[in-house]
Amino acid sequence: MIEVGIVMGSNSDWDVMQHAARVLKDFGVRCETRVVSAHRTPDLMFEYAETARGRGIKAIIAGAGGAAHLPGMIAAKTTLPVLGVPVPSRYLRGEDSLLSIVQMPKGVPVATFAIGEAGAANAALFAVSLLANHDPVLAEKLEVFRRKQTDTVLAMTLPELDA
Amino acid sequence: MIEVGIVMGSNSDWDVMQHAARVLKDFGVRCETRVVSAHRTPDLMFEYAETARGRGIKAIIAGAGGAAHLPGMIAAKTTLPVLGVPVPSRYLRGEDSLLSIVQMPKGVPVATFAIGEAGAANAALFAVSLLANHDPVLAEKLEVFRRKQTDTVLAMTLPELDA
Amino acid sequence: MIEVGIVMGSNSDWDVMQHAARVLKDFGVRCETRVVSAHRTPDLMFEYAETARGRGIKAIIAGAGGAAHLPGMIAAKTTLPVLGVPVPSRYLRGEDSLLSIVQMPKGVPVATFAIGEAGAANAALFAVSLLANHDPVLAEKLEVFRRKQTDTVLAMTLPELDA
Amino acid sequence: MIEVGIVMGSNSDWDVMQHAARVLKDFGVRCETRVVSAHRTPDLMFEYAETARGRGIKAIIAGAGGAAHLPGMIAAKTTLPVLGVPVPSRYLRGEDSLLSIVQMPKGVPVATFAIGEAGAANAALFAVSLLANHDPVLAEKLEVFRRKQTDTVLAMTLPELDA
Amino acid sequence: MIEVGIVMGSNSDWDVMQHAARVLKDFGVRCETRVVSAHRTPDLMFEYAETARGRGIKAIIAGAGGAAHLPGMIAAKTTLPVLGVPVPSRYLRGEDSLLSIVQMPKGVPVATFAIGEAGAANAALFAVSLLANHDPVLAEKLEVFRRKQTDTVLAMTLPELDA
Amino acid sequence: MIEVGIVMGSNSDWDVMQHAARVLKDFGVRCETRVVSAHRTPDLMFEYAETARGRGIKAIIAGAGGAAHLPGMIAAKTTLPVLGVPVPSRYLRGEDSLLSIVQMPKGVPVATFAIGEAGAANAALFAVSLLANHDPVLAEKLEVFRRKQTDTVLAMTLPELDA
Amino acid sequence: MIEVGIVMGSNSDWDVMQHAARVLKDFGVRCETRVVSAHRTPDLMFEYAETARGRGIKAIIAGAGGAAHLPGMIAAKTTLPVLGVPVPSRYLRGEDSLLSIVQMPKGVPVATFAIGEAGAANAALFAVSLLANHDPVLAEKLEVFRRKQTDTVLAMTLPELDA
Amino acid sequence: MIEVGIVMGSNSDWDVMQHAARVLKDFGVRCETRVVSAHRTPDLMFEYAETARGRGIKAIIAGAGGAAHLPGMIAAKTTLPVLGVPVPSRYLRGEDSLLSIVQMPKGVPVATFAIGEAGAANAALFAVSLLANHDPVLAEKLEVFRRKQTDTVLAMTLPELDA
Repeated sequence: MIEVGIVMGSNSDWDVMQHAARVLKDFGVRCETRVVSAHRTPDLMFEYAETARGRGIKAIIAGAGGAAHLPGMIAAKTTLPVLGVPVPSRYLRGEDSLLSIVQMPKGVPVATFAIGEAGAANAALFAVSLLANHDPVLAEKLEVFRRKQTDTVLAMTLPELDA
Repeated sequence: MIEVGIVMGSNSDWDVMQHAARVLKDFGVRCETRVVSAHRTPDLMFEYAETARGRGIKAIIAGAGGAAHLPGMIAAKTTLPVLGVPVPSRYLRGEDSLLSIVQMPKGVPVATFAIGEAGAANAALFAVSLLANHDPVLAEKLEVFRRKQTDTVLAMTLPELDA
Repeated sequence: MIEVGIVMGSNSDWDVMQHAARVLKDFGVRCETRVVSAHRTPDLMFEYAETARGRGIKAIIAGAGGAAHLPGMIAAKTTLPVLGVPVPSRYLRGEDSLLSIVQMPKGVPVATFAIGEAGAANAALFAVSLLANHDPVLAEKLEVFRRKQTDTVLAMTLPELDA
Repeated sequence: MIEVGIVMGSNSDWDVMQHAARVLKDFGVRCETRVVSAHRTPDLMFEYAETARGRGIKAIIAGAGGAAHLPGMIAAKTTLPVLGVPVPSRYLRGEDSLLSIVQMPKGVPVATFAIGEAGAANAALFAVSLLANHDPVLAEKLEVFRRKQTDTVLAMTLPELDA
Repeated sequence: MIEVGIVMGSNSDWDVMQHAARVLKDFGVRCETRVVSAHRTPDLMFEYAETARGRGIKAIIAGAGGAAHLPGMIAAKTTLPVLGVPVPSRYLRGEDSLLSIVQMPKGVPVATFAIGEAGAANAALFAVSLLANHDPVLAEKLEVFRRKQTDTVLAMTLPELDA
Repeated sequence: MIEVGIVMGSNSDWDVMQHAARVLKDFGVRCETRVVSAHRTPDLMFEYAETARGRGIKAIIAGAGGAAHLPGMIAAKTTLPVLGVPVPSRYLRGEDSLLSIVQMPKGVPVATFAIGEAGAANAALFAVSLLANHDPVLAEKLEVFRRKQTDTVLAMTLPELDA
Repeated sequence: MIEVGIVMGSNSDWDVMQHAARVLKDFGVRCETRVVSAHRTPDLMFEYAETARGRGIKAIIAGAGGAAHLPGMIAAKTTLPVLGVPVPSRYLRGEDSLLSIVQMPKGVPVATFAIGEAGAANAALFAVSLLANHDPVLAEKLEVFRRKQTDTVLAMTLPELDA
Repeated sequence: MIEVGIVMGSNSDWDVMQHAARVLKDFGVRCETRVVSAHRTPDLMFEYAETARGRGIKAIIAGAGGAAHLPGMIAAKTTLPVLGVPVPSRYLRGEDSLLSIVQMPKGVPVATFAIGEAGAANAALFAVSLLANHDPVLAEKLEVFRRKQTDTVLAMTLPELDA
């Protein structure tokens, strides 16, 4: 069953958002990926948000750039956990997207992650952690992921300076 | 007939947004003022935007703070001119609201004005200028307003420095 | 008849501002495009602003970078709707232009749009929406434009992740 | 059973973080509140993070100001969902805290919320939404909360302008 | 003869700009102080700038807040040295004014000073230094001012810490 | 006689600062160009500043990047007009340089210009305007420069949009 | 013997910088406190920096606001460790001071600490840590300080929420 | 004996941090270089910090990007001097790293240096200055370094402008 929805405002956001999809795939968490635009397909957005819980979705990852209204508006239409990823904008490099996503008013939360690829991957890891609360196998996978990640760093070496 | 709609996310925005209402009243332009929250009353927001043109509205002034999705989402649901006013937020003083409102993606415009009271008043003056394109009486009123404004500055005096 | 004026401070702004001209052309709205510099041709700027209404202009789109005084100074000399487009500056990427354009004092409004190409296109779409208030054909074109835009997003697909 | 941990770097953060505790209490979700400082009690912080899952905690809300390392370092020591709240700092008003919390590197996510009280309350609401995925009663409470919130806005009125 | 003009967009700028007038008075440099608004009295502004040289003015100090177009537009209409002072704005504390004044395009310079009172006083000191190039008495006064300033700092004492 | 000194902290600043030298050369104003580093040649800097007036210098243009102490420290050691040019820094693009130069305390002014090439050229134009106060030939040259500049803009054409 | 010098640009910086003096006093490290202004007493500044090592000083703590050249210029004239403290400025709250102090060019380092009181206290603690490298008693005092600090946090309690 | 530790969160930080290693090598100060990640190897980080003093380390240079918790967390676990270097992040160019490192709370200092290569080199030079307090040979080397640096600047020439 699909447990996580990944939505983004345009297929040009895929470069960033595929990092979320990749993480979920690596963990064996099934997800759906959709282009849903807050400003260009507002009705689809509302319908997506309203029907997500009924379809078994446990978390929605929404990536958006610039004014970046998608995560907040999805959160306005569902009580599911919504995870927002600021996609870097051309001139302001994601500072506008970050503030638009994170500064939600009291009452309608969006969990916000870092700008760009790291944020997309981390939103997916966070979704896994959320699902892992009721899935011991997934929880164990998450531990293994962390241990491997630690091992990768422990194995890193630095070059010698030439004299 | 009501020609301009003024909406805001909370009645706490009234301190700022009343400056828009006041300007319209001074020009004899009828407006309606409503609390419409993007995040807390999303369906009302969509309905408001969808029905505005049918009710004769010519421009919608939307004030919002923080993530400030209201102007952009109304613009997503109507082709009427939407004027956005960034209401100052507590910690970021409106910089977040400004970026959230102005950085709309190509295809769905929001005309953005200055942060706070000046922006609210100017959004209303801009609405007047828009209506004045087909209303010579209003156009004349606008000229008179400007001339008075000029006269007020011309009449300003500065104090003497004490020796 | 020419209904919209597009002005910019230098022909180097054309890369950005042509997006406004293109949108108007696509909608069949006639416009004039002019290089008018606030700092290098101030008298031309004043003359342009003062004569615009008499020539039938209904809205002026002004693009400017850096200190970006053009939109605000045109607004100071006409009561026509003035739409400002922040052209990205070399080192501050348009943040300076945005603030210089949007932070107008109470009494002289400039409707501000996003930094760069998106803002130029949206200023033009906004001009269309303004004209459409008294032009049912244009209003319908705007509806069609939006529907096509929606359809474009609805048709977007995302690639499969390779295993 | 305690399901949510709320930690903060100092008892001076309580003014902000009590908004998280209050929301959880209103939803009947049991939480523990602790002062845990990343820089002044680093060992306690690690121990807290390491033992949280074993004690049945499902989510940790961490508030911090300035350099704000608490949420990220707790996330480094647990695979539980960690929710970060930027507490406003004296001179930079929380911009430093926000960036320190949200810009986590790929591999160790922190879900970040708005600066200050709104962010604290929203982190708690988000924790509720996360728990509600496996608790239909809580899910229903969340729906009721949203409906009441909507009703509150719908009932808001705006004052008349005096003539 | 009046050698320096001090202009500002509103009499509300006097709190800041009087620091310029005070410095000039202390140095015995005659100045005129005027309210000249770029946006509300654009014609007066142009006339002021065009006639300044003819009236013997050697430097114009212009203070402005927000979009702050006054210094740059005066500079566009005169080849006299123009000194700009960013007056703090309500929500952005002068960052907008600073960028609007300092980021002038190549070809039309404005000498910019610090935000607020210090900037106003320093613009006046700079005007004195400019006049002093051809006025040995003024040059000597400037040296004396600096020496006194140095003496004031040299005479500063710091309190003892109580035990 | 040399009337303007141009100093910069490193020969790597020449790319930017040559625009100042070029302008002065075009106006026939003789200048000297020197590498003087606030941090690496502090004694030279002080000596340069102290001896400048005696050598007939009328204005010093100082370009600096990053912490950018050069203009302010030269101003601390001379009462000559000092013009500061923020050289773009690698990571903060000149925002640090701009603030370090412009935010001088009351009592020691630095006239600040735009970041980068435009600022360098404008500092030189400003120096010309300052010298022109007592040099009618230079004043006339400045007028001619402005007229040519105006003519250049007036002659600019914009391309046609292809259909 | 005096081991640490604390300098600041004005006695108005004492409110912030006394926190450095207080910490050193608590640790029994003798220090001298002086008003030394980069811009108003540049010669004293150079002399202070040049003679510090000879007088047995091991570290210099320099606090400054706004353009904040003091720490960097002292570092230019001594090879002693220089610790910089950004004193909050009126309008930019220390952001200008922070960038002016920290963005030193390669070759002349300034160790920078947080804006305001916390930074002043931490600069002093850092000076203690530096001295403690060759002073086991001081090293032990530092350990005790940290343990007490830890104990203070461990003893903090949070109020109960009222029902 | 190794006197300085250089740590960084990933081997991708080596491009920046090698500038610290290079400076130490040039001064004949022995150092160790290690990849230690705050978020991916938190236990190693604590162990590294706790054992550093016992192994004779006199200063730790820690480079980190983004949320950049490494310097502050090492400082939380040792009373040795900790020097932090903000490594530029992809989208925010090191502004996030700088604030995360420098804004440490009262009680746990981190000496912060400039963003990127200059900061890495300067942290090393600062470490040398700290060691030089008890090492006259090193102190002399530092003086020689500075003199050479001064000579390099004194020998710089600027190109002639072509006519």
